Amino acid sequence: MSVASSRHFLQIPGPTNVPDRVLHAIANPTIDHRGPDFADLALEVFDKLRAVARTSADVVIYPSSGTGAWEAALVNTLSPGDEVLMYETGHFAELWSELATTLGLRPETIPGDWRSGVDPDAIEQRLRADTQHRIKAVAVVHNETSTGVVSDVPAVRAAIDAAGHPALLLVDTISSLGSIDYRHDEWGVDVTISCSQKGLMLPPGIGLNVISAKALLAAQSAKLTKAYWDWQPLLSAGKQGYFRYTPPTNMLFGMREALSMLLEEGLDEVCARHDRHAAATRAAVRAWGLEVLCRDPGTTPGTDHSSALTAVLMPPEHDADRLREVILEHFDTSLGAGLSKVAKKVFRIGHLGAFNDATLLGTLGVVEAGLGLAGVPHEPGGVTAAIAELTGRSGE
Amino acid sequence: MSVASSRHFLQIPGPTNVPDRVLHAIANPTIDHRGPDFADLALEVFDKLRAVARTSADVVIYPSSGTGAWEAALVNTLSPGDEVLMYETGHFAELWSELATTLGLRPETIPGDWRSGVDPDAIEQRLRADTQHRIKAVAVVHNETSTGVVSDVPAVRAAIDAAGHPALLLVDTISSLGSIDYRHDEWGVDVTISCSQKGLMLPPGIGLNVISAKALLAAQSAKLTKAYWDWQPLLSAGKQGYFRYTPPTNMLFGMREALSMLLEEGLDEVCARHDRHAAATRAAVRAWGLEVLCRDPGTTPGTDHSSALTAVLMPPEHDADRLREVILEHFDTSLGAGLSKVAKKVFRIGHLGAFNDATLLGTLGVVEAGLGLAGVPHEPGGVTAAIAELTGRSGE
Amino acid sequence: MSVASSRHFLQIPGPTNVPDRVLHAIANPTIDHRGPDFADLALEVFDKLRAVARTSADVVIYPSSGTGAWEAALVNTLSPGDEVLMYETGHFAELWSELATTLGLRPETIPGDWRSGVDPDAIEQRLRADTQHRIKAVAVVHNETSTGVVSDVPAVRAAIDAAGHPALLLVDTISSLGSIDYRHDEWGVDVTISCSQKGLMLPPGIGLNVISAKALLAAQSAKLTKAYWDWQPLLSAGKQGYFRYTPPTNMLFGMREALSMLLEEGLDEVCARHDRHAAATRAAVRAWGLEVLCRDPGTTPGTDHSSALTAVLMPPEHDADRLREVILEHFDTSLGAGLSKVAKKVFRIGHLGAFNDATLLGTLGVVEAGLGLAGVPHEPGGVTAAIAELTGRSGE
Amino acid sequence: MSVASSRHFLQIPGPTNVPDRVLHAIANPTIDHRGPDFADLALEVFDKLRAVARTSADVVIYPSSGTGAWEAALVNTLSPGDEVLMYETGHFAELWSELATTLGLRPETIPGDWRSGVDPDAIEQRLRADTQHRIKAVAVVHNETSTGVVSDVPAVRAAIDAAGHPALLLVDTISSLGSIDYRHDEWGVDVTISCSQKGLMLPPGIGLNVISAKALLAAQSAKLTKAYWDWQPLLSAGKQGYFRYTPPTNMLFGMREALSMLLEEGLDEVCARHDRHAAATRAAVRAWGLEVLCRDPGTTPGTDHSSALTAVLMPPEHDADRLREVILEHFDTSLGAGLSKVAKKVFRIGHLGAFNDATLLGTLGVVEAGLGLAGVPHEPGGVTAAIAELTGRSGE
Repeated sequence: MSVASSRHFLQIPGPTNVPDRVLHAIANPTIDHRGPDFADLALEVFDKLRAVARTSADVVIYPSSGTGAWEAALVNTLSPGDEVLMYETGHFAELWSELATTLGLRPETIPGDWRSGVDPDAIEQRLRADTQHRIKAVAVVHNETSTGVVSDVPAVRAAIDAAGHPALLLVDTISSLGSIDYRHDEWGVDVTISCSQKGLMLPPGIGLNVISAKALLAAQSAKLTKAYWDWQPLLSAGKQGYFRYTPPTNMLFGMREALSMLLEEGLDEVCARHDRHAAATRAAVRAWGLEVLCRDPGTTPGTDHSSALTAVLMPPEHDADRLREVILEHFDTSLGAGLSKVAKKVFRIGHLGAFNDATLLGTLGVVEAGLGLAGVPHEPGGVTAAIAELTGRSGE
Repeated sequence: MSVASSRHFLQIPGPTNVPDRVLHAIANPTIDHRGPDFADLALEVFDKLRAVARTSADVVIYPSSGTGAWEAALVNTLSPGDEVLMYETGHFAELWSELATTLGLRPETIPGDWRSGVDPDAIEQRLRADTQHRIKAVAVVHNETSTGVVSDVPAVRAAIDAAGHPALLLVDTISSLGSIDYRHDEWGVDVTISCSQKGLMLPPGIGLNVISAKALLAAQSAKLTKAYWDWQPLLSAGKQGYFRYTPPTNMLFGMREALSMLLEEGLDEVCARHDRHAAATRAAVRAWGLEVLCRDPGTTPGTDHSSALTAVLMPPEHDADRLREVILEHFDTSLGAGLSKVAKKVFRIGHLGAFNDATLLGTLGVVEAGLGLAGVPHEPGGVTAAIAELTGRSGE
Repeated sequence: MSVASSRHFLQIPGPTNVPDRVLHAIANPTIDHRGPDFADLALEVFDKLRAVARTSADVVIYPSSGTGAWEAALVNTLSPGDEVLMYETGHFAELWSELATTLGLRPETIPGDWRSGVDPDAIEQRLRADTQHRIKAVAVVHNETSTGVVSDVPAVRAAIDAAGHPALLLVDTISSLGSIDYRHDEWGVDVTISCSQKGLMLPPGIGLNVISAKALLAAQSAKLTKAYWDWQPLLSAGKQGYFRYTPPTNMLFGMREALSMLLEEGLDEVCARHDRHAAATRAAVRAWGLEVLCRDPGTTPGTDHSSALTAVLMPPEHDADRLREVILEHFDTSLGAGLSKVAKKVFRIGHLGAFNDATLLGTLGVVEAGLGLAGVPHEPGGVTAAIAELTGRSGE
Repeated sequence: MSVASSRHFLQIPGPTNVPDRVLHAIANPTIDHRGPDFADLALEVFDKLRAVARTSADVVIYPSSGTGAWEAALVNTLSPGDEVLMYETGHFAELWSELATTLGLRPETIPGDWRSGVDPDAIEQRLRADTQHRIKAVAVVHNETSTGVVSDVPAVRAAIDAAGHPALLLVDTISSLGSIDYRHDEWGVDVTISCSQKGLMLPPGIGLNVISAKALLAAQSAKLTKAYWDWQPLLSAGKQGYFRYTPPTNMLFGMREALSMLLEEGLDEVCARHDRHAAATRAAVRAWGLEVLCRDPGTTPGTDHSSALTAVLMPPEHDADRLREVILEHFDTSLGAGLSKVAKKVFRIGHLGAFNDATLLGTLGVVEAGLGLAGVPHEPGGVTAAIAELTGRSGE
């Protein structure tokens, strides 16, 4: 049970803080998923989802986590033994690669340093070498949630095209969709993978795919076993606003509301808001004398700072998880842990989803306070620097 | 948007009416799924779920529909080409059989008439004939949602034992768990399959398996491909109250509340409540001069009336879907359609989940009113008969 | 804490069942009552309230009960020692008269039998006799909540006019506004008194006055002490959408939503819905062989059946409160008690506010069941009669 | 409708941010205010309210604003023409004095400078001079919401006692109860006046009085007209957990929850939390180079900084309302305006009610940002100073 002093700040890089408006929508009484009101709901959700993904393509929604949406993308488009080209942007790229192996695919992962994005040249080079076109898909993570690095998806598309290679382009937008500029159609993506609990401002529980015509065609000959994840029956039922199996009705109530909120604010405005908060966060990090994990965008091809989260490197000998514990205990604020290779070395500040200046400054304030309490060497004044960044822009 | 005259009566056989207490719990702010509060939540949900399923075995929870939980049960315990013995109790038994085929199994279905339950003798006979033990699992539906017939699971267990057969026993309790007496341990079930939106009084979005030690053992050598549905990593993480992938946090808030409500009322009391409502519903159906789809329990082995729903046969030449439309339009009450073989021939009254006498009498009242408006030949007085049934018992 | 079997049926004649849509609105975060969003809220509420009261006059809203709104009407228009003509329609008319005495007024109450409405002839006669115009106000109850009798307000207005008397007309619409046809302007009412928790479908907590120009004029010379209830500062602030003291913000969120629901459904449709439910309730009462408290509208001037509630006479020697206890205990349904003179002799079925056919039939069903359990002599078949009444009309 | 970027910061000195747990409680279905569940609710609320006011005396609750609770205190204890000694601590003390005049009392107000609290010596002196005991009550404001100054209530009590004067002591705790240490019994207060929307963390809509035995005795001979506010019938009904008129049921649901939250945290802990946040706020104000309105506690008798709000003086020639507009527009944060004599000269930061370090730092952050955007001369670093204050204490 919460106490009066607890307005939890959920500043992990997802799940994110769900707006009251969305929570209230989710609390509406469940309706008949075979009745006319449901069809109206589902069709509106599909339409608005397309608007947010900037696409006119088909979408499918699963009661699932984001990993389910990864699985759906692979089993619908590929066949046993197919090669998939991946890129080690961080922890989630690695997990996706492991999943491909589990499903009977043969992933090949271009190594990365967990501080930069997908190198388009490396992709192009590898595809050019694949003269037999054994590689059936290129699968990349748009915003690597474990590192706070954004890859240049249009450049990956261009690399594939430059290589004249027919591979499908699968993109994980789990922590970017709804927070960072993303364009399924314009960027020539074949399958967009995403889920509910990040930029879409919902609780976890929905996974989704956006599917290009080329991916649909590939699905016709894909041989991996699929039942729950099978696009075909979902797409057929979806045209009328229904689902093949019982859909997550109340989550869809929330999704209608959350997508409406994004579209009311305007996608460009949403992205600009997150860009601004990310810049202010980096300003704070630098003022503290700490280092942002993501490399300088100017120096590394295909690499940009994430507007959804900022991963911060701890000074040597200081444990990021200890800092996070102090901040949780003293300030009821959750930050993201460093994962796998960067465990304990970084902490991650989530600034995606429903978020505003006051919440950002409160978050940065308790991080600064926590650095002090935990005895982490740093300069004060991070919040001051963030305020300067915020008002320098908003004041113009 | 609802209007003042609309307190929708969701009397399909699931999703069911979600209590306000559960809806409010679901509307709580999402929390960090890696934090200590989450672990407390998850462990409490697992414990209470075990109590409701009357088991001390392992449970896994998926962000999924009920069909996902079916798939999980099959892929974790079986290998390509394995034979599965099934029984055609109705539509959902057939769908499960189709799923087995899709997954590369070889289901063999004992035919049924859609008005009776699993015949334990037929099961025993078939297993005795399987001297090679090619059949690896017997998969039956406890409460067939399409027909309102309950099968005798302990008798099926006894049949398997009588045949001295090692097959696993997989039981679909999707529309029985939390409404109809069910005992995973005592009845010797290997995998119990269920989901959130029926007797558990939640919106759709969670699927679950209860797993016996024997099923766990089988899982070690099962060869079907599995990733999302794989029990092993979920069970490992679950011991500490965590999930392998992002769990449906807000649904779990609701599940904790809904399970608490069932346990506060008492499982025996919950089942007795549903038994009583089902008896009153049948009294109304008979008073209308209509026929209940389920055969007389006295005449057919392994067959009992469902306490979760009642399927009602329409008089010849009258379309059940037309009746349902009239009732939805005039009375804002949703009833279940006849499915597949019994489409348009039956309608189904759901009386499971959160339900009381007043809601039952309101439901039966509008069905009686709808029969009149739709011109379906019937005697009035169904509600009178239901009242007599309710008060005869409650007055004792 | 509610249990799974409890969807309480709140069938007292107010507070009424609050729709989810309204409850969710009330649960929105409180806002600054001096900020621009608040002004928009308040002005919308005032406008919609005027629409529901069918007026273009001024309205004031109080954080108060309905009795507070009575007090407001009196202290703003009258001076110490003023005579007020009242009519004993039942308990609430008597309470209002007591309040007038407490405030230093001199109420004169025309006796009534608690089974009929205001006799316009008696009003006219009394006013004609008041040649000195000592009577400053005629105060009547539109729908007497204690008896289920509606008085003919236009006939009272006509009686005042026929007598050529300048008295103000004050009308209590506490249990009629939003359920029974009422027209402040067309009927020439000077002060309409109402509150939130009946036909307006809100929780208790708001009282209100609608104020004619003549009443405003009277207020300028009224000498009763007033501070909290003083119209003037509230009206001044209200023009800009603000309040003189801190307003009940969250209740106003709910009021905006509830008024919107009434206007979306249409006031004529809302009234017709309640008329229909009242007729079905009376059909049930008669089928049970019981008597409705309200006299036959054809036989008593100024008397009509209430569409908001039905008061039912118990057979002699049977205690209505015992019946209500049985129904509450067995069926989680609240009915209204008989008050004062008719205590234990009548029970009241509320069918006002958010209500539909299924809820009505559920309510009548449990009343019929309760009559049986409590051993009250009656004929079964009340619900059958109600169904016939409902479908006879709706089927035309 | 809210947008994704809006998690409004309601930092006026009340209404305050209502915790989700309280909002959810308020959204529960309304119940019968004459039924047994209601009595349990009311008795629990009364008990917990007594615990929070540190009293064993009687309490009454009104559906009203705080001004209603003022009126109730006066009309129940006093008679026409009675003299009341008041003290001009600020705007609300003045309003209370105006109310006394309106009600037919004769208030005498000791002038103050709006920057300090009640001077106990001045009270004692005036009472000593009143040898006829014409003064029937001393009425003071504990925490003056317009200035952020706390008066020393025990010292006022001591002054009355030292003068050997029988006057009642009436104390407005509207913005202190639940945030600042307050003790009705120990401090010898006769009537405590408060309301729901400040430290009690509820929406507005409830006013309340705590009543000493001496005040109850005075009520027996008090002659001011009273009806709605009359303690006597409310106290009689309240003993059984009922109300004389329809109570604000849903607000009471919320009140039970909010009082539980305060008691779960512990009253001492709640007060310490607010003391700490107030100290951090003053540290920020001083770092900005601005002045706190409240005089130095060390220099002025009966004066202490408020732990509920901080009023900040603007530099000359700068308009506080313009600053508030900038902050509302840019940062969706509401601050309190300067009222009456200090209009435009001060702005008020509310830090009472449900509040924690992160929310405080977010609030101070946007104030600092707003000072910059509005061109108000100030030093940056206020948040840095607040962090130092917060961690200096919490780190010990």
